[in-house]
Amino acid sequence: MSKLKQLQNHLKENGWDAAFITTPDNVFYFSGFKSEPHERLLGVMVFKDAEPFLICPKMEMPDAVAAGWTFDVVGHEDTENAWDVVAKNVAARNVAFDTLAIEKSHLTVERLEAIQERYEQLKFVSIDEKINALRISKDEVELEKLRKAAQLADYAIQVGCDAIAEGVTEMEILNTIESAIKAKGYAMSFETMVLAGEKAASPHGTPGNRKIKKGDLILFDLGVIYEGYCSDITRTVAFGQPNDEQIEIYNAVRRANEAAIEAVKPGVRAMDLDKIARDVITDAGYGQYFTHRLGHGLGISVHEFPSINGANEFVLNEGTVFTIEPGIYKTDIAGVRIEDDVVVTNDGVEVLTSFTKELVIL
Amino acid sequence: MSKLKQLQNHLKENGWDAAFITTPDNVFYFSGFKSEPHERLLGVMVFKDAEPFLICPKMEMPDAVAAGWTFDVVGHEDTENAWDVVAKNVAARNVAFDTLAIEKSHLTVERLEAIQERYEQLKFVSIDEKINALRISKDEVELEKLRKAAQLADYAIQVGCDAIAEGVTEMEILNTIESAIKAKGYAMSFETMVLAGEKAASPHGTPGNRKIKKGDLILFDLGVIYEGYCSDITRTVAFGQPNDEQIEIYNAVRRANEAAIEAVKPGVRAMDLDKIARDVITDAGYGQYFTHRLGHGLGISVHEFPSINGANEFVLNEGTVFTIEPGIYKTDIAGVRIEDDVVVTNDGVEVLTSFTKELVIL
Repeated sequence: MSKLKQLQNHLKENGWDAAFITTPDNVFYFSGFKSEPHERLLGVMVFKDAEPFLICPKMEMPDAVAAGWTFDVVGHEDTENAWDVVAKNVAARNVAFDTLAIEKSHLTVERLEAIQERYEQLKFVSIDEKINALRISKDEVELEKLRKAAQLADYAIQVGCDAIAEGVTEMEILNTIESAIKAKGYAMSFETMVLAGEKAASPHGTPGNRKIKKGDLILFDLGVIYEGYCSDITRTVAFGQPNDEQIEIYNAVRRANEAAIEAVKPGVRAMDLDKIARDVITDAGYGQYFTHRLGHGLGISVHEFPSINGANEFVLNEGTVFTIEPGIYKTDIAGVRIEDDVVVTNDGVEVLTSFTKELVIL
Repeated sequence: MSKLKQLQNHLKENGWDAAFITTPDNVFYFSGFKSEPHERLLGVMVFKDAEPFLICPKMEMPDAVAAGWTFDVVGHEDTENAWDVVAKNVAARNVAFDTLAIEKSHLTVERLEAIQERYEQLKFVSIDEKINALRISKDEVELEKLRKAAQLADYAIQVGCDAIAEGVTEMEILNTIESAIKAKGYAMSFETMVLAGEKAASPHGTPGNRKIKKGDLILFDLGVIYEGYCSDITRTVAFGQPNDEQIEIYNAVRRANEAAIEAVKPGVRAMDLDKIARDVITDAGYGQYFTHRLGHGLGISVHEFPSINGANEFVLNEGTVFTIEPGIYKTDIAGVRIEDDVVVTNDGVEVLTSFTKELVIL
């Protein structure tokens, strides 16, 4: 069943008249049209009992059609009020419009008030949970795209390793990686991280003109988009022989990553995986330096549901894709993170990223 | 007066107890701390009668301090409810909390409801207009950053022109441009556009493996970030001798761009500028092919207030920075856009971008 049809069925089951989808990634999910409209209105209006329409800036109308959207495309000019255009197209369908499902996690208060102004009696309900439930379970078409995205991420790490040399800067390595991916016709899923030595010890540092030198651990965190689906990988490699504590830290992170992956199967809770990885690192004596959650869902968005953290009781099921990325950040000693993308299978796990986790010493 | 102080005075004048700033660009504007928190909570709580605090994911706390924020930084873990942390820090200040100014254009319905749950009697007002009014008027420190960002954009266009050759792809040229900017240690303000021939005739096309050939017009649209401030430039150049209609279209766009720039001074309305440029293009017979607004505000965000469109009565004043970017997109003939960044001075205009607008024939 198409994703749009599943949403429509959900409206029918709940007796809701329509759903207005406004998160760009969700518009892409339901329509195939990927667009970043900035402050302009972009949305898909799905009706219980009528054909949906897609509203976008007028100049993007041809792109929406080219992306494969086969229902109405409605354009709005910068000089008109986009909500008038929405209202006109709702009215044209001549169906009940008493309950509207909205993305409460995305729709702004300003937009809510704009809708309320036009429909004083309209009742609002949240469609977030349903969309999360749909998106959290990837079908085979989506999984195939995620596999390809992960392969490209593996390749990007190899390019990064090949670019490491004495005196080369983080930015130069980053640049070599992104050039290689762009040359293949792909875009990165987020700003690539290449962090060396003390800079890697910050989990969200910024690459700069720090030069690589012997004894550095170098952390890569990057991802590639394949047909709208993202990968996200982290590897930490050594330039020259690492010292004993660096090796100890690396091995603790690796064991945490592997223990969590080993435990993935239908029925496991997100919080269980976080605990398994965290226990390994705590037992190694580095618990205080693992300062973030274990991972996050992955798909059209780089960060999506579920969050793999110590408080999330969410039960994993077949088709859910997420990252497993334990890390230890000990100032002036080492910053190490190892991140893989995994999917829950019917009886266990498939790991999408495959770059080696042996400590690479260059 | 500091930007924070101006906001606090505004709260006092209106008798509002606090303002909660959540747009990442506005958090940067008031705190100096630039961060993309994804789904996590990031915000600055400014009080009428107490010291402000900044709330961010726990692991980013050192970065917020390093960015120069000198008041309280409050961290939240993924495992706790960030709104509990907010409430605790509000309570600790022991001041009235009956009216809260929020960014209605950014705060989601979900977040509004989370606040409402904790403060049933709280009254909400909008702080959007005030923040827009502050941000729309750039001070000399900001203007200096915008000038530097524009110079880097000029340089990037030159790099792009130098990279044009028979058989080179759009992506290869794009790559050369971005590499040159990254090598200088800067990031692009948005995804660089390099579009050739028929692909430039789509105002929001995507660069790909289209190869450059004689007779192409090539459109560059790009920007560079300098210390948090963005530039945004478009130039269209020719590879080989263009035909008569391409030259006619180029000249119409150039005249439109120059006529609008010529008209910029304090007291002019946004809509007047749009009309001046549009009239030039309409008189040349291409009105139907100029399918977007004339321009948009520019600063910390690539798209910010004011919108320079035919319906915006906003009156321009000294210190406002925006783009002027007329274009003509005629399928299979030519896609031409010429975009400059300008600032309103006390008696006219300063153009920040300076790459030539003579038709460059390579």
